[in-house]
Amino acid sequence: MAEETAGALTEELTFTEAIAVELGYRGAHFAGYAEQPGQRTVAGEMRRALETVLRRPIEMDCAGRTDAGVHALAQYVSFPATAAELSMPARRLMSSLVALTPDDISIRALHRAPAGFSARFDAEARHYRYRVACGPTRPVMGWDHTWWLRTVPELDVDAMNAAARPLVGEHDFRSFCKASSAELLIADGRSTSRNLSDVSVDVTVEAGERLIVFDVAGNAFLHNMVRAIVGTLVEVGRGHRPVGWVADVLAARDRCAAGPTAPAQGLVLECVDYPSGVLTPWL
Amino acid sequence: MAEETAGALTEELTFTEAIAVELGYRGAHFAGYAEQPGQRTVAGEMRRALETVLRRPIEMDCAGRTDAGVHALAQYVSFPATAAELSMPARRLMSSLVALTPDDISIRALHRAPAGFSARFDAEARHYRYRVACGPTRPVMGWDHTWWLRTVPELDVDAMNAAARPLVGEHDFRSFCKASSAELLIADGRSTSRNLSDVSVDVTVEAGERLIVFDVAGNAFLHNMVRAIVGTLVEVGRGHRPVGWVADVLAARDRCAAGPTAPAQGLVLECVDYPSGVLTPWL
Repeated sequence: MAEETAGALTEELTFTEAIAVELGYRGAHFAGYAEQPGQRTVAGEMRRALETVLRRPIEMDCAGRTDAGVHALAQYVSFPATAAELSMPARRLMSSLVALTPDDISIRALHRAPAGFSARFDAEARHYRYRVACGPTRPVMGWDHTWWLRTVPELDVDAMNAAARPLVGEHDFRSFCKASSAELLIADGRSTSRNLSDVSVDVTVEAGERLIVFDVAGNAFLHNMVRAIVGTLVEVGRGHRPVGWVADVLAARDRCAAGPTAPAQGLVLECVDYPSGVLTPWL
Repeated sequence: MAEETAGALTEELTFTEAIAVELGYRGAHFAGYAEQPGQRTVAGEMRRALETVLRRPIEMDCAGRTDAGVHALAQYVSFPATAAELSMPARRLMSSLVALTPDDISIRALHRAPAGFSARFDAEARHYRYRVACGPTRPVMGWDHTWWLRTVPELDVDAMNAAARPLVGEHDFRSFCKASSAELLIADGRSTSRNLSDVSVDVTVEAGERLIVFDVAGNAFLHNMVRAIVGTLVEVGRGHRPVGWVADVLAARDRCAAGPTAPAQGLVLECVDYPSGVLTPWL
C-alpha cells in the first residue's frame, strides 16, 4: 500500500535536473556499495537519508559499485530532482545528509547536473588507489586502508611498472575478472573489454608510513578487476614471477592464469571524471 | 613469593648494554602509555611481551608517556640488557615482539645503546604532530587520528603561526599544563619551564584529505601541553581571539587563561631525538 502511494507520488513529479552527491566512506563495516536485503550497505544508508530529506522514493545511480570492505574518497551518487527540490538551500540538504548518514560516510560536496544525468553512465573514468605496506612493521596510522605484506621485505617497483605496461589500453580483461561475473557477462552477450589509461606503481610516505601505491584508472572496471591486477603485480614485485608474465596472464583470458585477488581493505575509489561542465558545484 | 623470586633473579644479572625498542601505536583503545592497574596500557602490553620473550622482570623507560587516546609513530622504550640477551638474533626478538603485541601496537625497530641508557632521560627532543580537519566534510581516511572541527569552515594558518611565535624558546608553560599536574610539580619543587624549538602550523593533503597540521617540538612537555597549545591556537585560527592573546596566555601562568584542551585523538608522538651515535640500529 505504502509502495503504491509512493509510486503514485513519484509518477506525478517532473524532474528538471539531477543532483549528484559526492561522498566518501570507509568500507570496513559495509557489505559493499550496492543494496542487499538485510545488509548494511552504502547505497542503503544513502537512500534512507535522501528519502528522509526529500520525502519520496529515490532511485540512484553511482559511479562505482565498490565491493564489501572497499573504501571511497569521492564516489558519486546521482538522482533526478524536481524544481522544488533544487530550490531548497544546498546548505540545508548538505547538513541534513551529514546528520542522517553514519560516521563512516562522509558527504563531501553537492553538484547539479542536467536532467538525465547518470553518475554511472556519464562517468568517463574511475581512478582507484591501492596501498601496500611491506616488511615486519605493522602500519600504524593507515592500518585500516592498507594491505600489510608482513613477510615480504620489499616489492620491486620498477619490475611491477614494467609488468603493468601491457595492461594500459583497450583489452579483454577477463583474466582479471571474478570468474562467476565474467560468465554472467558473457552469457548476456556483454563485453569483458575495458580501457585502462593508467596502471602505475610508486613509493610514497603517508602519515609517516612508507607505502607502495598502485594507481589504476580506466573507463570502467570488471568485478574485482583492480584487486586482481594488484594481486598479480605483487607476484612480480616479490620476484615470484617474471615481468613478462603479466602480458601472458592478460592474453590467457582466464582468471586462473592471474595472481590472487588482493584484499578489499587496501582499495580506495579515489575520484571519478565526468565530461567538463556537466557537473555544476552546488555546495 | 613470585615477586621475590623474580627480584632475586634480577639481582644476579649483569647489564652490559641497553635495548631500545622503537614502536608505534594507535591510542584509541589504550588508557594511555603508562601502566595503571586493571587498565589496558601500552607499557603494560610491552612489558608483558618483553617479559615473555626474556623470561625475567623488565623495568622500562619511555620517551613520552602519552595520554589515553594519543597515538605514536615512533615512541622509544628502553631497558638494560644482559650480554646473553644481546647475543640473541635481533630478528628473533623482533618477530617475538610482533607476535606477542596486539594489532594496535607496531614494533618498528630495535636499537642497542650503552649501559645506563634511558629512553626518557637521554631524549633531547620530542616531536608531536596534531591533525585538524575543518568544515562540514567528515574526514574519511584519517578519521581516527584527526580532530574534526565540523562547524569551523576554515582556520587562519598565518594568524596561528604568528600567535605561536612567542611560545618558541624557554618559558614557564604552566598556562598549558593540566592544573592538577602543575600543582603537583610545584609542590615537589619541580619546574614548569620547558624549551620549545618549534611550534608551526601548515596545510597539507594526506590520503586525499585536506588537513591543518600543528608541529610542536621541544626538549620535554608538561601534562596535556601540546593539546592545550593546539586548543589555544585554534581559538586564534577561528577568529575568536587576536594573535597577541597567546603571548598573554603564556605570561599568565594560569591554565584558566588558555584555550580548551584539544581532543587526544588528533595527537601523534612523531619522533624522538637522541644524541647522535647513542643508538646503534640493531634491526
